[in-house]
Amino acid sequence: MSDPIVLSIDAMGGDHGPPATVAGADLALDRFGDRPVRYLFHGDADLIRAELAKFPRLQGLAEVRHTDTVISGDEKPAQALRRGKGTSLWNAVEALRTGGAQAAISGGNTGALMAISKLILRMMGGSDRPAIVAGWPTLRGVTAVLDVGANIDCDANQLVEFAILGSAFYTAVYGGGVGRPSVALLNVGSEDMKGHQEVRDAHALLRSGKLDLDYRGFVEGNDIAMGAVDVIVTDGFTGNVALKTGEGMARFFAATLREQLTSSLMNKAGALLASGALNALKARLDPSSVNGGPLLGLKGTVVKSHGGADARGLANAYFVAANLAGSNYAEDVARNMARLSEPEILADAEPSAGSAV
Amino acid sequence: MSDPIVLSIDAMGGDHGPPATVAGADLALDRFGDRPVRYLFHGDADLIRAELAKFPRLQGLAEVRHTDTVISGDEKPAQALRRGKGTSLWNAVEALRTGGAQAAISGGNTGALMAISKLILRMMGGSDRPAIVAGWPTLRGVTAVLDVGANIDCDANQLVEFAILGSAFYTAVYGGGVGRPSVALLNVGSEDMKGHQEVRDAHALLRSGKLDLDYRGFVEGNDIAMGAVDVIVTDGFTGNVALKTGEGMARFFAATLREQLTSSLMNKAGALLASGALNALKARLDPSSVNGGPLLGLKGTVVKSHGGADARGLANAYFVAANLAGSNYAEDVARNMARLSEPEILADAEPSAGSAV
Repeated sequence: MSDPIVLSIDAMGGDHGPPATVAGADLALDRFGDRPVRYLFHGDADLIRAELAKFPRLQGLAEVRHTDTVISGDEKPAQALRRGKGTSLWNAVEALRTGGAQAAISGGNTGALMAISKLILRMMGGSDRPAIVAGWPTLRGVTAVLDVGANIDCDANQLVEFAILGSAFYTAVYGGGVGRPSVALLNVGSEDMKGHQEVRDAHALLRSGKLDLDYRGFVEGNDIAMGAVDVIVTDGFTGNVALKTGEGMARFFAATLREQLTSSLMNKAGALLASGALNALKARLDPSSVNGGPLLGLKGTVVKSHGGADARGLANAYFVAANLAGSNYAEDVARNMARLSEPEILADAEPSAGSAV
Repeated sequence: MSDPIVLSIDAMGGDHGPPATVAGADLALDRFGDRPVRYLFHGDADLIRAELAKFPRLQGLAEVRHTDTVISGDEKPAQALRRGKGTSLWNAVEALRTGGAQAAISGGNTGALMAISKLILRMMGGSDRPAIVAGWPTLRGVTAVLDVGANIDCDANQLVEFAILGSAFYTAVYGGGVGRPSVALLNVGSEDMKGHQEVRDAHALLRSGKLDLDYRGFVEGNDIAMGAVDVIVTDGFTGNVALKTGEGMARFFAATLREQLTSSLMNKAGALLASGALNALKARLDPSSVNGGPLLGLKGTVVKSHGGADARGLANAYFVAANLAGSNYAEDVARNMARLSEPEILADAEPSAGSAV
């Protein structure tokens, strides 16, 4: 039996605090199977212990590290760096370096989590900030999309690093540790001359074939929900807009469907009969079913949970964190990053101006 | 009674040719009410006349201008410029300058339509290429989103021009010619320091208040389908990805709903009872209900129809074209463009680096 994976949890992070962060830890046990996992909870010890008392399965698997202070949701990253030491978020990340933990999870302030993680763990590669990856529900399963908001301006090299990070992430979290996921760059058309300089240069680098990646070229926005590839790479501005556009569309469809299905007695009767199907649909579109966005590019595993996530959402974030920490992700990334920094690869990028039409 | 608006139609453009372009002209008559409209059809005279014979209402309203040649879907813009003269697409646009027409409509090759329109009609303002505007169905009605694919790299001034164009377009096509539509910039957060330099500079220009616009600041991707504002401005790369992401989501939802509703006898029975609601939902999500994307920024009205649009979609494109040509759109745009080029406005743009988190 292997050593347990220790998950370091900011118990106070997110909208619901210990009632959600602890209940999620219990729920997650159902998904770990026989892989041994232990929890380190950081925050108000009384509140955490009161929740732990409700879950007999967590006895002996959970340790509590008390702290009185928390980082608030509106704290700026610079402020959080100056004043964040000793908070539940800071201590959750710090435990990766000094507390024997393999992954940190927080539903708290994203900017603070990124800044503190970067300070404590440092970055791999040339990116200035970790990339945020979203698990997007598609017709084929889940597609990993990154970056969805951290790196607003990205050069070609950063996009290639995202491809490396996303591929290794997908293998670890969705591929069961095996296989080479298909990777594509998000663009406004599929031909080589489409898009801006950065995306065309990244395309040239990726198709050179010297990286250990299954690169498939360009995809467009409509390919995301179709599940055309496993990993879709884009800059943080475009990725953030795409992700939020998708979330808005999901809310639009749910609202329109509800409105239509309550518009007459016959529609209501139909909706009642088909309620099993409609509830299944809702679950399929529910973002919390794929909650847990790792901050990729750090020398260590940090997973951001949605602030509003419930116990089920948090359980998924813990599952993602444990998968990542227990995988060959770091080695996969290091191997491709080393290839990327070989000078002949960089020389291959060929400049070539292209719109969607 | 006012002079009729003459619509110049590339009868051969799009996947279906005259059977759709002519039938759409008949359907559109129902929407024009008592506003007089006439049609100029460019293309194969025999094919067009055979279709016209099916629609008694079009007798006396339609004129046919024969040409043997067409621009194919895969022709590059540069090729189309060299060899396009005399084609149905070229002649449809040319009729705005020399044939007494007020608006041109084509479902043909978008790149060719843009290049030929720009050559024949010229641009207003400083943009290099016309902006493509999409009418996006939302919870509140329709939101105009531009640019959705023509201008990949946009500076702040171009984004401000899009705001001017989009606002005047919305008033003409969706506002019945009155009112000041609400306008926002698409970004990754609502605070002033969010996003890249171009979007922040455009924000500074727009909130200076010297333009006659109801500017509301930044919106995010999820605000599009919510209908948070009437007009959303973005660069052609981001807009194209957002639009296609939305289209992909619509297909994803339709497929998932269909799959769920046929998964058991009870669900099937429910779907049958609620079929009225489900069909209404489908119509609501159907992109052809808002077909017709004007190329904004040209000195003349040119509307691009989806290549795959049917008669109903084309009728909507003709309706959009007639609304635009019969409105104060050009005067509205010219007034704000003049204000934009006053030097004190340009000086107000204040630089200030911001990610989504």
